[in-house]
Amino acid sequence: MIIPVEWTDEAVKMLDQRLLPMEEKWLMLKSYTEVADAIRDMVVRGAPAIGVSAAYGIALGAKQFVGTSAADLEDELDYVCEVMGKTRPTAVNLFWAIDRMKRTFQQAKAEGKSVSEIKQILIQDAKDIHEEDIESQRLIAQFGGELLKDDSTVLTHCNAGALATGGVWGTALGVVRGAINQGKKVSVIADETRPYLQGARLTAWELLQDDIPVTLITDSMSGHIMNQGKIHAVVVGSDRIAANGDVANKIGTYMVAVMAKRHNIPFYVAAPLSTVDLNCPTGEQIPIEERNIREITHVQEIQIAPEGIAVSNYAFDVTPNDLVTAIITEKGVARAPYTKSLRRMFEE
Amino acid sequence: MIIPVEWTDEAVKMLDQRLLPMEEKWLMLKSYTEVADAIRDMVVRGAPAIGVSAAYGIALGAKQFVGTSAADLEDELDYVCEVMGKTRPTAVNLFWAIDRMKRTFQQAKAEGKSVSEIKQILIQDAKDIHEEDIESQRLIAQFGGELLKDDSTVLTHCNAGALATGGVWGTALGVVRGAINQGKKVSVIADETRPYLQGARLTAWELLQDDIPVTLITDSMSGHIMNQGKIHAVVVGSDRIAANGDVANKIGTYMVAVMAKRHNIPFYVAAPLSTVDLNCPTGEQIPIEERNIREITHVQEIQIAPEGIAVSNYAFDVTPNDLVTAIITEKGVARAPYTKSLRRMFEE
Repeated sequence: MIIPVEWTDEAVKMLDQRLLPMEEKWLMLKSYTEVADAIRDMVVRGAPAIGVSAAYGIALGAKQFVGTSAADLEDELDYVCEVMGKTRPTAVNLFWAIDRMKRTFQQAKAEGKSVSEIKQILIQDAKDIHEEDIESQRLIAQFGGELLKDDSTVLTHCNAGALATGGVWGTALGVVRGAINQGKKVSVIADETRPYLQGARLTAWELLQDDIPVTLITDSMSGHIMNQGKIHAVVVGSDRIAANGDVANKIGTYMVAVMAKRHNIPFYVAAPLSTVDLNCPTGEQIPIEERNIREITHVQEIQIAPEGIAVSNYAFDVTPNDLVTAIITEKGVARAPYTKSLRRMFEE
Repeated sequence: MIIPVEWTDEAVKMLDQRLLPMEEKWLMLKSYTEVADAIRDMVVRGAPAIGVSAAYGIALGAKQFVGTSAADLEDELDYVCEVMGKTRPTAVNLFWAIDRMKRTFQQAKAEGKSVSEIKQILIQDAKDIHEEDIESQRLIAQFGGELLKDDSTVLTHCNAGALATGGVWGTALGVVRGAINQGKKVSVIADETRPYLQGARLTAWELLQDDIPVTLITDSMSGHIMNQGKIHAVVVGSDRIAANGDVANKIGTYMVAVMAKRHNIPFYVAAPLSTVDLNCPTGEQIPIEERNIREITHVQEIQIAPEGIAVSNYAFDVTPNDLVTAIITEKGVARAPYTKSLRRMFEE
């Protein structure tokens, strides 16, 4: 059972995903700045996992506050949240977690709680966010599992597994685990997901841990394999879903979705509602993070492109809603028109 | 001016493309088995370059024959050609070059030439194949260059440059060089082309050598960049073109072609007629090479996937003719229906 981030009374404990699959090393992050650095440096990644980690980081910031006035704690938390909000721009779960922790603080403050009580409330709320995240995935796994047929092969892009979430299930890989729990035979084709190789390093590792059959391919190979009739469904996660169902996810998702459409393969997105951003009308408003070009020119210390080459390194792309067969959330399965179906899930 | 393979009286001189872009090392291959190994191990790659190299390898095999009878030389050449034919199954230029060298031998034998004369004739024919290849590319560059607009950006996949051919121009990159020679401003977006990284290592290097503006992306990024409107044409090479215009090329080409269609971007294939296989009715009959999985699990000595992972490593895919805007050859530009237009080029 993989849980990539945990609260301890001393620190936020985090699996260093940069070292997988060759090394399984846990970091003890002893301040909110260390947590923020870990999110930015991709020790942890995946929108739900970033949300949980940010909540724990804010709780840690509150816990380490040395003053006695709630007003001063509020100033401190504002600053902590600002630092946390600058780590990864695309993952909306980050901002969702920040907002929720802020609301929890405001409520506790309004209720006249002491600074020490507020600290405990914030720590408890971060733990609740984590538990709710795992519970959401359990439900996503159940709803999504029902969409997969027996004896089917699922293509997934990037890692939307236990490693990308609070743990245990995962979103896209939760759907696979859900189907297997329902007694179906499911195997996975994982594309490697350049440049950061989340597929090769993380999805492959995570599925091997659970004895789920997995075959690794390059990102460029999925079209050929779809054309061979070997893929029955695509399931991916998301970093932000706009109100109209446009889906931001790891760069390359758009190409996979277009190929799936061409081959009449269902394209499913699995994500908790904390990934849905109703304030974002369409995918065009989703900021797309650009990362260091060294991710492309080097693999660890090995240089694979000539010195001085110009590089573009977009970390995400947007898949338009017409390519999305369904969005699997903890409240059930949303289908087009998404503007209606997604909004309805928040109202239930 | 890049010429990746050359005949010397001692040996076949070949640029070791496995070491680019970090090291520019030339190998002196002193026997036909060394040439065959170099083709199989991808010291040289790219269908036209494989054809030229195989011709030189056969010439070297003939040169080193120690007997005095033409019949014995024929046996020896049959064996040399068999070894050569087993190096790379997809590139039809390999078999084209083998057939041509065999025909040249047969003609010389029928004319009653001595063994020593036949050796000279075969060496000369290999040199002719090389020169004709460069001349073909010059014409491809000219015809293809006319298809590109001024101030345009071309996406290319893999390396179909001077490095992939007898040299100087290249096929896909020949089209870019042709347009630039015609006074147009053209820049290139090169995708890295996993797993072997021909885009990052070779196309990027080759274009930097010639001061042609080039930006490197991952294979998963071309859809996003097309969606931004930044790409005006796709130009790729080919390893084998079926009689109906289906195009086998580096794995990932099919996905690029589908994305180009979606974004109404012309998709051009640049290849000499030696790449067109009229004996192959459609892409379905083209054998697709599968290569060592270590190309995917490792980058040089660095392991990037977990121990024991299952891997598929198809080296090529087939792009169906309906996605191909035009095929640029040394005889001009072929358009659909390709069954007619390609055949006509052989008849001219």
